[in-house]
Amino acid sequence: MNEHSIPAAAAHRFIRAAFESQGFDTSTADTLAALMVEADLYGSDGHGIIRLPQYIKRIRAGGINKEPHIRVVREHVSTALVDGDNGMGHLVVSFATTLAMRKARQSGMAWVNTRMSNHAGPASLYVRRVVTEGLICLYFAVGNANHLAPWGGTELMLSTNPIAVGLPTRDEPPVILDMATAMAAYGKVKAKAKRGEMMPPGWMIDRQGQPILDPARSAEGLLLPIGGHKGYGLALVVGFLAGTLGGAAMGRQVIDFNADHTSVTNTGQTVAVIDPAAFGDAEEFRKSADTVVRDIRSSERLPGVDRIWLPGEQSFEKHARYAVAGFPLSQGLLDELNALAQEIGIAPLAELAAA
Amino acid sequence: MNEHSIPAAAAHRFIRAAFESQGFDTSTADTLAALMVEADLYGSDGHGIIRLPQYIKRIRAGGINKEPHIRVVREHVSTALVDGDNGMGHLVVSFATTLAMRKARQSGMAWVNTRMSNHAGPASLYVRRVVTEGLICLYFAVGNANHLAPWGGTELMLSTNPIAVGLPTRDEPPVILDMATAMAAYGKVKAKAKRGEMMPPGWMIDRQGQPILDPARSAEGLLLPIGGHKGYGLALVVGFLAGTLGGAAMGRQVIDFNADHTSVTNTGQTVAVIDPAAFGDAEEFRKSADTVVRDIRSSERLPGVDRIWLPGEQSFEKHARYAVAGFPLSQGLLDELNALAQEIGIAPLAELAAA
Repeated sequence: MNEHSIPAAAAHRFIRAAFESQGFDTSTADTLAALMVEADLYGSDGHGIIRLPQYIKRIRAGGINKEPHIRVVREHVSTALVDGDNGMGHLVVSFATTLAMRKARQSGMAWVNTRMSNHAGPASLYVRRVVTEGLICLYFAVGNANHLAPWGGTELMLSTNPIAVGLPTRDEPPVILDMATAMAAYGKVKAKAKRGEMMPPGWMIDRQGQPILDPARSAEGLLLPIGGHKGYGLALVVGFLAGTLGGAAMGRQVIDFNADHTSVTNTGQTVAVIDPAAFGDAEEFRKSADTVVRDIRSSERLPGVDRIWLPGEQSFEKHARYAVAGFPLSQGLLDELNALAQEIGIAPLAELAAA
Repeated sequence: MNEHSIPAAAAHRFIRAAFESQGFDTSTADTLAALMVEADLYGSDGHGIIRLPQYIKRIRAGGINKEPHIRVVREHVSTALVDGDNGMGHLVVSFATTLAMRKARQSGMAWVNTRMSNHAGPASLYVRRVVTEGLICLYFAVGNANHLAPWGGTELMLSTNPIAVGLPTRDEPPVILDMATAMAAYGKVKAKAKRGEMMPPGWMIDRQGQPILDPARSAEGLLLPIGGHKGYGLALVVGFLAGTLGGAAMGRQVIDFNADHTSVTNTGQTVAVIDPAAFGDAEEFRKSADTVVRDIRSSERLPGVDRIWLPGEQSFEKHARYAVAGFPLSQGLLDELNALAQEIGIAPLAELAAA
């Protein structure tokens, strides 16, 4: 299977042009392109440029507000509820993240929920931004399609509601955990499908409980939660926190944005920020974090294991490589993006990449 | 195997007498007994009366401060750091929970960490208290012995660091998730050992990666995290949040309180509380939570599944039964408790139960 290397700048121009072609102003298109490319550069290949065709389809169908009035609709000392006015999720969560950081610096910690938001790419985009400022971040979100059944059930009642946590360090790469509460995020299933690869057993079952290995059959199946009933419990409480608490969709209210491109998704996300300085010397905290990271990395390994990784470390290394050499893109996805380019009248990605 | 039913009042008197025999004042002994019995009544059989012999051993060895000065050592608008002065963890976390609730009502949400605390029983004790007040609770803790290796490792660097989340409802039982980040908490392994039962595959492996099924061999093994690298990541970030952030033990600093009864454990816990009223009408939130609970409970089931449970619902039902009929206790544990009673000069549990 052919794989291309796409330079960040080429992908950025392509994505920006795609949004501009739909009437987004240049500054907004730039913001969206920067975040989507960052996702691919850090190896979040299920949440970067791969999502562009779907975003554009929804925008063309009128399912996204191109000029949203993103605003705080309820606020307390350490909390806020942000209404995204059905704008692109990247813009809404960026707004919420900035607000949460400001409030955390003022009161020690802050918890900001969004409603009327949309798919915002990988959690790590926002968590990384917070961690870069020396703050701790927790992120929860309601996914944009239900792929999980309750434990013992067959009905798709829950999304793979992700949990992300970021911790600043001093000399080590930051610790950034970004995980779906299913064995695999649906984005990873899509990426497997795009690459023509099979899924490992344990990712999905059908409604008779039999394993599904072919990602092309994913629409028939249920994603499996991590740790059985535990992952079901995690997906559920994340849905309550990021969705129900702020009046965003959860459970049966969740729109399947793979199938429905017009209904308002009313997506909810939580960005919670903690200032380590509220608990002691922030520099000491980062040093202690470095010590834990090094202790774990240098601990004894199972036979055949070359290296113990910390959460986020592989993404960090991918970024170092991809920022220089470009990020990998399958032939299938490149073809799809260039078909989209033709449809919306922008230059293909291939040409830009070759430039 | 014989199983006894122990009335709550008998267990309460027994535990209170045990602490009083060690010089705890009656009020403190009462508080500890109430929390430990509540654990058993809700089915947390790995964290209730089963822990009494270990607690008493540590107290007799001088490893616990019987008259701690539990106090706030650092405070911001929505955060606090509580120093437990090496007191019983139940007292320290109760203090932190009260404080977090008060601060959350004042500023919308609050995040309180403990340090110099100790084992506090199941997270659900504190989460339930918060939820009863109509508030949302998140709880994280660093466990008191490392039973997990990093993913790919063999060295016990992490505990089964639990995550608990509680959500208030209106007419339904509250949603209370209380889970270890391992496939099974070590308390469950101990309970299996006490009952003379084997563990299912997937709970533990030895240092060659082979399954361990006999809980008597647990000291040789590693508990497995949920979802492989994901559970490792969760255990790690929980350790940072509940431990490192507040200057409590984490990683190599964690004392194995099963083997070492004198060293200060410097245990850390996090109690975070959110006031739903900061995000909208609190009554509406509870109604929405009820709707989600009912939708999930009534959703389609796999063949052979009688009922879909919400997190905490089985504990809720156990409590209804055990509060009336007593909670189950194995012959082995009863013998152990009565040997302890003889050792410390208090009346045996059997006699009290028969009274």
